[in-house]
Formats: sequence, structure tokens, C-alpha cells
Amino acid sequence: MTNLSISRRGELMPASPIRKLVPYAEAAKKRGTKVYHLNIGQPDIETPKMVLDAVRHSDFKILEYSHSAGNESYRRKLVEYYSRVGITVDYTDIIITTGGSEAIMFGFMACFDEGDEVIIPEPFYANYNGFAVEAGVKVVPITSSIQSGFALPPISAFEEAITPKTKGIVICNPNNPTGYLYSREEMETLKTIVQKHGLFLFSDEAYREFCYEGTHISAMQLEGIDDNVVLMDTISKRYSACGGRIGALVTKNKKLYNTVMKFAQARLSPPGFAQLAGEAAIDLPADYFNATKEEYKARRDLLVKRLNAMEGVFCPNPGGAFYAMAKLPVDDADKFCQWLLEEFSYNNQTVMLAPASGFYGTPGLGKQEVRLAYVLNLESINAAMDCLEKALLDYKNI
Amino acid sequence: MTNLSISRRGELMPASPIRKLVPYAEAAKKRGTKVYHLNIGQPDIETPKMVLDAVRHSDFKILEYSHSAGNESYRRKLVEYYSRVGITVDYTDIIITTGGSEAIMFGFMACFDEGDEVIIPEPFYANYNGFAVEAGVKVVPITSSIQSGFALPPISAFEEAITPKTKGIVICNPNNPTGYLYSREEMETLKTIVQKHGLFLFSDEAYREFCYEGTHISAMQLEGIDDNVVLMDTISKRYSACGGRIGALVTKNKKLYNTVMKFAQARLSPPGFAQLAGEAAIDLPADYFNATKEEYKARRDLLVKRLNAMEGVFCPNPGGAFYAMAKLPVDDADKFCQWLLEEFSYNNQTVMLAPASGFYGTPGLGKQEVRLAYVLNLESINAAMDCLEKALLDYKNI
Repeated sequence: MTNLSISRRGELMPASPIRKLVPYAEAAKKRGTKVYHLNIGQPDIETPKMVLDAVRHSDFKILEYSHSAGNESYRRKLVEYYSRVGITVDYTDIIITTGGSEAIMFGFMACFDEGDEVIIPEPFYANYNGFAVEAGVKVVPITSSIQSGFALPPISAFEEAITPKTKGIVICNPNNPTGYLYSREEMETLKTIVQKHGLFLFSDEAYREFCYEGTHISAMQLEGIDDNVVLMDTISKRYSACGGRIGALVTKNKKLYNTVMKFAQARLSPPGFAQLAGEAAIDLPADYFNATKEEYKARRDLLVKRLNAMEGVFCPNPGGAFYAMAKLPVDDADKFCQWLLEEFSYNNQTVMLAPASGFYGTPGLGKQEVRLAYVLNLESINAAMDCLEKALLDYKNI
Repeated sequence: MTNLSISRRGELMPASPIRKLVPYAEAAKKRGTKVYHLNIGQPDIETPKMVLDAVRHSDFKILEYSHSAGNESYRRKLVEYYSRVGITVDYTDIIITTGGSEAIMFGFMACFDEGDEVIIPEPFYANYNGFAVEAGVKVVPITSSIQSGFALPPISAFEEAITPKTKGIVICNPNNPTGYLYSREEMETLKTIVQKHGLFLFSDEAYREFCYEGTHISAMQLEGIDDNVVLMDTISKRYSACGGRIGALVTKNKKLYNTVMKFAQARLSPPGFAQLAGEAAIDLPADYFNATKEEYKARRDLLVKRLNAMEGVFCPNPGGAFYAMAKLPVDDADKFCQWLLEEFSYNNQTVMLAPASGFYGTPGLGKQEVRLAYVLNLESINAAMDCLEKALLDYKNI
């Protein structure tokens, strides 16, 4: 009688693997236990004052719709920013989006149909799964391993995964969740593949400014594949402005650009206030990222050192972003992470980690791995590592 | 060789019928012609100062992600607002969205699959087409006519349109583009239909506060269909805060709520700054809407009077929102609206209207109709009507 059921798409939509342990963390806090949050990429770095002030000192009278592609003044300003990081684009190549999330969603919607396939090196940012479900595209993972520090799988792995339904490859560089920074050779490999097979190359460069060794090579810098490349960007991590929800989709493929514009027009415009923040951020002093990068690098160095000093733990040194993946001496990291919140405490403190299983597309992989976001200060990281070290000893004996 | 084509979905995605004449308007302005914009629902009413000040006087240091469902304080406050307009909900029934647009998109995504059908009385808000394409759902229009002032089509029209694939009905009340305010009897009719056939009832109530005769009946006030009703809401028009991009999806259907939450989590959070604005707006004085409503009503009265005084023009009196539909003595309103911008001027002024064809799902309907948004002050409306009156006389003779 009733058709009142939710959609198959809604059933398929994955719950956030990062947020599923939240109820256990809340219960721990209610018990009075301090929880160190290394589970989520919410930086503790202050949003630059001049960025917030651009909103606070604004004096318009009507909060109007902006252009569906975002304010022209902001898009023109972004061209300056991209030029400084070696990316040559015109403002007419840029569509301002509601966070990097909407850039991913628009790109998937505009390029992929139900039944198409997209290749993503795993482990990968878990929400790609959600956007893939929304667009009806099948994610085909190819595995990068912790032993090799999560380097790009060999070209043969891509060739084996490509079918007539394959329409694109998605990378995140530097990577969330692994922190891996792709080398120039790896980027050239990707270029060869997308050129040979006529695939879109989606490049999520949310963490571009946070590289600690080596140089960031943007997909937009690869020559001869302008029609293939879709850059997905965001101010969230760059300026610690996650809540603004301002990102960008950048492409020189005009047909694709015009198609994405139709999706952008349907939702009218990106958020108004935070566009002012994004535009102001481009005038931050040239050395703005230095201090932030130094801070993240010091945290990374401490975290990786502490982890590798624990018995049975292995953590490759990540080249960028603010994540590290570690292999723990446990059978099931999901259970261990829940146990940390439900059963464990040390000096009335515990640590929240993201089990890595949610970042893998292949069932069963990453069972012993966790992702750690080094978004807390050195003292907190030390305290969190004290907890983890003690917890691993306790967990062995239960 | 190359798979580098955009998606079928991207091809199907409609361009905005409201924005497609923009290049002609820009050209007219470059020629020095003043253009009265009656084509788009961007109010000229100032955003209340205390609403903007809630953002400008904020003093947080980090622009963090909010909860994926929106700030709890804002959701709790919205419960107060809804209570004042006779809608009883709990804050756990509310998900804050990025504009009303995202509420529509989430609702469609969570309820409809590729090939499902949704019935929408036409003419309807053109962007429903876009969200339908994104979700792969087929829009089945049933026609309301200008002769009857765009009243809800009879129940038999719904019964004829319902197939085994029908999963929902979408209404906008008061209506964009017609300004029609649904009566209690019409709302009860809709209740009967969705109950009998087990359909979702999507109710877009963006213009709730702008009713000039009669009482607004919310779909949330219909008893016994809590699981069917999905309220789509926004602060855009209510507080003249279109650029904030803050809306809400409200439903008491817990399974649907939890499903929509998965979509909400994938995009992390709604915009941060404008949530502060939305929350502050609920503390506006009780008489805040009176002045705005008086102003809109005066504009409506003038517009409708002027239109009906023109030879061959018919404009039913809209009960709400800030739109009117008029039938013009022209063969093709699309061509006429373009001509207004390209060829016509009167005292170096012209008027921009939205051709109604884009608001109909049935090809060929609305060819003689236009939508007018009375979002300009009385003086400008008079000047715009002077232009239109003169234009219709001129157009007869070409």
C-alpha cells in the first residue's frame, strides 16, 4: 500500500566513519574523562584575525545572493593566490563552492552517471564514498600500503582497474588520511594514465600549503591535460576556516565548467559572509603559512616519534597535510578505538582516534590501522601519546 | 578513445530560466539603459541590523565546523519560531541546510531514486527541475491555470497522474511563481492524497510570512501524516538574507531524518556565520513582519492594478509571496522579454521580466505568461509598469 520508503541511495549512503564513535566520546566526557580529539581534522589554529575582521567590519545593508560562481572580486583575487603557488588560471576557470565538499559533489555530478566507475587510491577521504553514492558512481579502490608509506600504487595497478566504464581518477594531495605527498614522477604517471585512457583527473588539494618535505605538484601544473583536470579546493584547512564553507572548483575544460555552472545556478549562490573572509585571506602576509607549517611540522615530528617508539607500532613519516596513519598491535582498530573511549582512562584522560577501516574501499583492509590528526598542541599530543602507550599495554592483557 | 564527456545528468541539467536573459540585461546596461529587475526574487528590503550584527559582533577565535545538523542553540531557537507560527516540532526534527536549496536536494536524494516520479503542480519554482535531475527523479506536472488564479488542480488530476512509480508531491505555499496561497481545504485534499497513496509531501514554505489575505496552513499542521511531511524552509526571503545560505529541512519521520543526516554529514556542516544571523533573527520584535508585509502588500496592489489596467493583460491577485503571474497580449513571452532588453527603451529605461515557460513542466504552456517579482519600491514599480505599458503598445506594431 505505502510507497513511503526512503531511496536506495539513502540506504546506501554511508554514515561518517569519523563521527560514528562520537556517542562513546560524549559518554566518556559525561563520566568526567578528558578526551584528546585526534580523530577529526578540526585545527586548533586560530583563524587569522584579518580574515574574520573582513566579515565583522563589512558594512553592506542587504545580505544578497552573490553570483552563482561566487563574487567576481573574490574569483579575481584567487587568481593571484593560485599564481603565487605556481598555478596559472583565469577567474573564469573558477567556481566558488560551498566548501570543498560541494566542489567534489558538483564534479562527480557533472562527470559521472549511474554505473560509471572512478578509481581512487585507498585509503581515501571517507566522504568521497558519500558523494559517489549521490552521483551513483562506483568507487574502484586501488590499494596503497602502509609498508611503502602509502606511495601511489604502480601504473600496472591502475591499468588493471580500468574498464570501459572508468571515467576518472581521484587523488588527494597531500593526502587525507595518509599525509602522503605525491612526487613529480607520480603526478607524471597519473598524467600518462588519464591521457592514455581519456579520464578526468580530480585533484583534491585542500592541504596544499602544508608540505613538510618536498614540493607540492598541483594537477593544474601538468601540461597538456587541461581538459582532464578538475581541481577541488577549500579555505577550510588553509586558513583554519572550516566553518565558513567556502571552496572552489577550478577547471579549464569549458564544457565541464558550463555544466557545473548549471548545478551552481540551481543552488543559487555560495555563502556570502565567508566569501569576504576568503577574499581577505589572500592578502595575508607572505610568511603567514610559515608559522603554521612550523607548528604542524613540530607536531608531526613529535607524534611520529612517539608512535614509532611504542612496541609494535609503525607510523610512516607523512610529507604533508596534518594526518598520520599508524599500524597498531591490535586485531581490530574499530574495537580498540571504542574501547579507548568506553573502558580506558589514564590519569582520567583518554584519546579518540579514527579507525582506518572507514578509509578503505576494500572490505577487511586497514583493520589494524588508525588515522591521527595532529591538530592539537605539542603538550596535548604528548599527553595523548602517553594515553595511547598505556592503553596498548593494558589492551594486550585483556 | 576518450571517455572525456560530461555526464548525461550534466547534459539534462537545465539552465536557469531566470538567469538566461542576464547577458541581454548586461548589454542594455552597457548601452546606458536603466533596467528594472522584476525578474528575480532578490528583495530590496534591508536585512535587519540586529541580524547582521549577530555576525559582526561575534567574537569567536576559530571558525570551526558546526554540528552537521547545525548549531544546537539555533535548532532549539527555531523550535520557538515554529511554535509562534503554529508548528510544533522538536529541535531533533530539524536539520540546518545550506539554503532552502540544500533542503530540497537532500529531501529528493533521500526519498527518490532514478526513475521514481514526483508530482508538482505547475507552474513551479524552476530549480525543482534541477534538483530532480540531480536525484534522477521524473517531474510529473499537473497544471494549474491562470484563469482560476492558479488554485490547486482538482483531486482527479492527481489521481490521474499517480502511477506505481509516484513517490511524492511537492508544493510551494505560498507559491513561487504564482503567489497562490493554498486554502485549508486544498491542504486537506493533499493530506487525503498522500495518505491514500503513501506519498511524501514536500512543502516549500519559504514565503510563509508573506500572506496578504487568508491564513497560511503549513503541511506540518496536517494531522496524522507526520511520516509523510518534509518541510523545506529558508531564512532567505523571511529576513531578506538570501546570501547567507541558511535553510532547514524539518521532518518527524525519524528514518528519513537519519538518512538525511548521512547526506548532511558527508558535506560536514552548514555555513557558520549565517547560522548566527538566523539564530538572532528569531529574537526580532513580534511586529517585525508587519512593516515588511505592509510594504509588499502595497507593492502587490499597485502592480496588479497597473497590470490589469493594460489592454489585453490579465493578472490574478496573488495571496502571498512576492510574485505575480500575468498573461500578456504577446505570442511568445520569451521573445518579448528578450526584446524588452535588446530593442526597447522608454525614457532610457526598460524592465526585465521572467518568461513563464521555464516554470512549466509541460512543453508549450505559459508561452504568453511572465512572472513579476515585486521586490522594488512603489516608485520603481510604477516606472517599470510605465515601461511595460509602452512596450506592449510598441510591440503590437512591430
